[in-house]
Amino acid sequence: MNKDIKITTLKKNWTTESGHSFSEVDIAWKSWGSLNENRDNVLLICHALTGHAAADEWFSGLFAESGILNPEEQFILCINAPGSCYGSTGPTSINPKADNPWQADFPDITIRDIVTFQQLLLDEWDITGIEMVIGGSMGGMVALEFALMDQRVKSAALFVMGKSHSPWAIGISEAQRQAIQADENWKDGFYDLNNPPKKGLAAARAMAMITYRAPGNYQAKFGRDIHPEKNIYQVESYLRYQGEKLVQRFDANTYIILSKAMDSHDVSRDRGSFKDVLGSLKKPVLIAGFTSDMLYPIEEQRELADLIPNSHLAELESPYGHDAFLIEFEKLNAELKSFYNAIKET
Amino acid sequence: MNKDIKITTLKKNWTTESGHSFSEVDIAWKSWGSLNENRDNVLLICHALTGHAAADEWFSGLFAESGILNPEEQFILCINAPGSCYGSTGPTSINPKADNPWQADFPDITIRDIVTFQQLLLDEWDITGIEMVIGGSMGGMVALEFALMDQRVKSAALFVMGKSHSPWAIGISEAQRQAIQADENWKDGFYDLNNPPKKGLAAARAMAMITYRAPGNYQAKFGRDIHPEKNIYQVESYLRYQGEKLVQRFDANTYIILSKAMDSHDVSRDRGSFKDVLGSLKKPVLIAGFTSDMLYPIEEQRELADLIPNSHLAELESPYGHDAFLIEFEKLNAELKSFYNAIKET
Repeated sequence: MNKDIKITTLKKNWTTESGHSFSEVDIAWKSWGSLNENRDNVLLICHALTGHAAADEWFSGLFAESGILNPEEQFILCINAPGSCYGSTGPTSINPKADNPWQADFPDITIRDIVTFQQLLLDEWDITGIEMVIGGSMGGMVALEFALMDQRVKSAALFVMGKSHSPWAIGISEAQRQAIQADENWKDGFYDLNNPPKKGLAAARAMAMITYRAPGNYQAKFGRDIHPEKNIYQVESYLRYQGEKLVQRFDANTYIILSKAMDSHDVSRDRGSFKDVLGSLKKPVLIAGFTSDMLYPIEEQRELADLIPNSHLAELESPYGHDAFLIEFEKLNAELKSFYNAIKET
Repeated sequence: MNKDIKITTLKKNWTTESGHSFSEVDIAWKSWGSLNENRDNVLLICHALTGHAAADEWFSGLFAESGILNPEEQFILCINAPGSCYGSTGPTSINPKADNPWQADFPDITIRDIVTFQQLLLDEWDITGIEMVIGGSMGGMVALEFALMDQRVKSAALFVMGKSHSPWAIGISEAQRQAIQADENWKDGFYDLNNPPKKGLAAARAMAMITYRAPGNYQAKFGRDIHPEKNIYQVESYLRYQGEKLVQRFDANTYIILSKAMDSHDVSRDRGSFKDVLGSLKKPVLIAGFTSDMLYPIEEQRELADLIPNSHLAELESPYGHDAFLIEFEKLNAELKSFYNAIKET
């Protein structure tokens, strides 16, 4: 990793909802700008399933000149989720009891666990206020839980997700996990790290890439064109390339652990009705979705906006489906700016 | 197989578009009713990807009392596609040159090859007329090619498909093939038939099952309910069950060969523009689609209806997505009846 990501080791207890206690954790993070005297000028960015703390790479448009983020005034922070393979404690970390990587022994985690894990670092730094928590897809789920669980959070910007992971999305995750677990190199999750289940992970990625886009986008991009050398359709070549790219940078157990964390997403769990839970969220909340998103359809964002009292819904158009939250930066910055400016004025 | 399927062996030449010649073929079929004297009272039914000649099982609603099919008057026939594992020559058949099953050596076939294969039997029986060719999904692709390629076909009823396989649908097929080929038992397609790549095929089926339905249907059916014994979501349990069911009855090489045949679907290939090819089809054509179909969106059926001069489009509502063509028999029978009666009157 050469992304300027820092890793802080904390000898603090972190207990997952599944009941596993860690006495020490590695927390990977990246920041831009400086904390002010009050330690409350934080903009916290939450990453998606295959993301990492280097938000300037995948959220580049928010960091651009025209973007919402401004390191002159804000302390912008992105913390890597636990269970990830990008520096935070996860299945590729050493299990101290076994002196080997955790791999499939890494405990199940939830979206709420991702919040309590990140809070360890915020507490260590005596952060007193978080102006806004921002995230899309899994990052949006984490951001919503942050807004519910942490009084320091003043506002939230939630992109392309809903109040809980739908059975539709769980089914898509499950099919992808099945592909990984069918791989000859899977070995029940205790695979050779030098010979991991690449084919299964690539198949999972291909499936995911389909759900991240929309039919019209594939039509415009590929048509039925044939790759001139490989004698396969261009869309097949593209999906294979995307698979190859992911397996170079990502761990199969991480894919399974974080996709299951997404499946756990349900703000009503053990708290009461969605109406009561989201009705209790009085902070300003921006909700943005794209009408072409087939993974978390726009109805899910409408539902959130209906249930959260102080919310603003942006229904955006894009050919890019779910992926639009990583592409349509002009539209997102415009929404974020008017939302953020309104908060700053109050 | 105990489906009353008959197998006819013909010593006839069948050459695939990929250039492979068979000098003898097995053709599996099932029929209902009797041929009339003119040998022209045929209703030909074409099956989908994992289907077979026993159409009374998967198209039961068309055979019902209230259905369009009437063995008293019609000779109803369903012929199994080549490449299948349900009796017609396919990858589980013996390759005479090797004295072993063909497996991955079975040649690539196209939707047009499926037509020329079925024509061998129609010619053998001196069929002079086909009142209607009916099919959905892959069966609809075969039915459309039949209408274009065979002068005996008087009319066609095409469900839930389009003028060509879209890059979106090809991508979905490709992800499924990747899952099969990742399986530890795949062995480059020359797997032990007693120990086939079940996990990969089950993962492919799970992916397919998602694309066959729609988010709202999954929500209504499963919500976020947990299976009481397995401690997994009900939707996960359902998809695993669907995978287990398919691997008991289906062959992985067949899945790959027929999904590639679907990818080949393009009525314009080597013929001219879609406008000219479909504009030349003067027969009456019923086109039916469901607005919740995410695999072959309703726009594809609208496009067919725009391009085929003597066509009638039925845009149907259903919660069941693509699968609706195997479920919404009342709606399909109503459309089929008024279409068929209009043809019979002329």
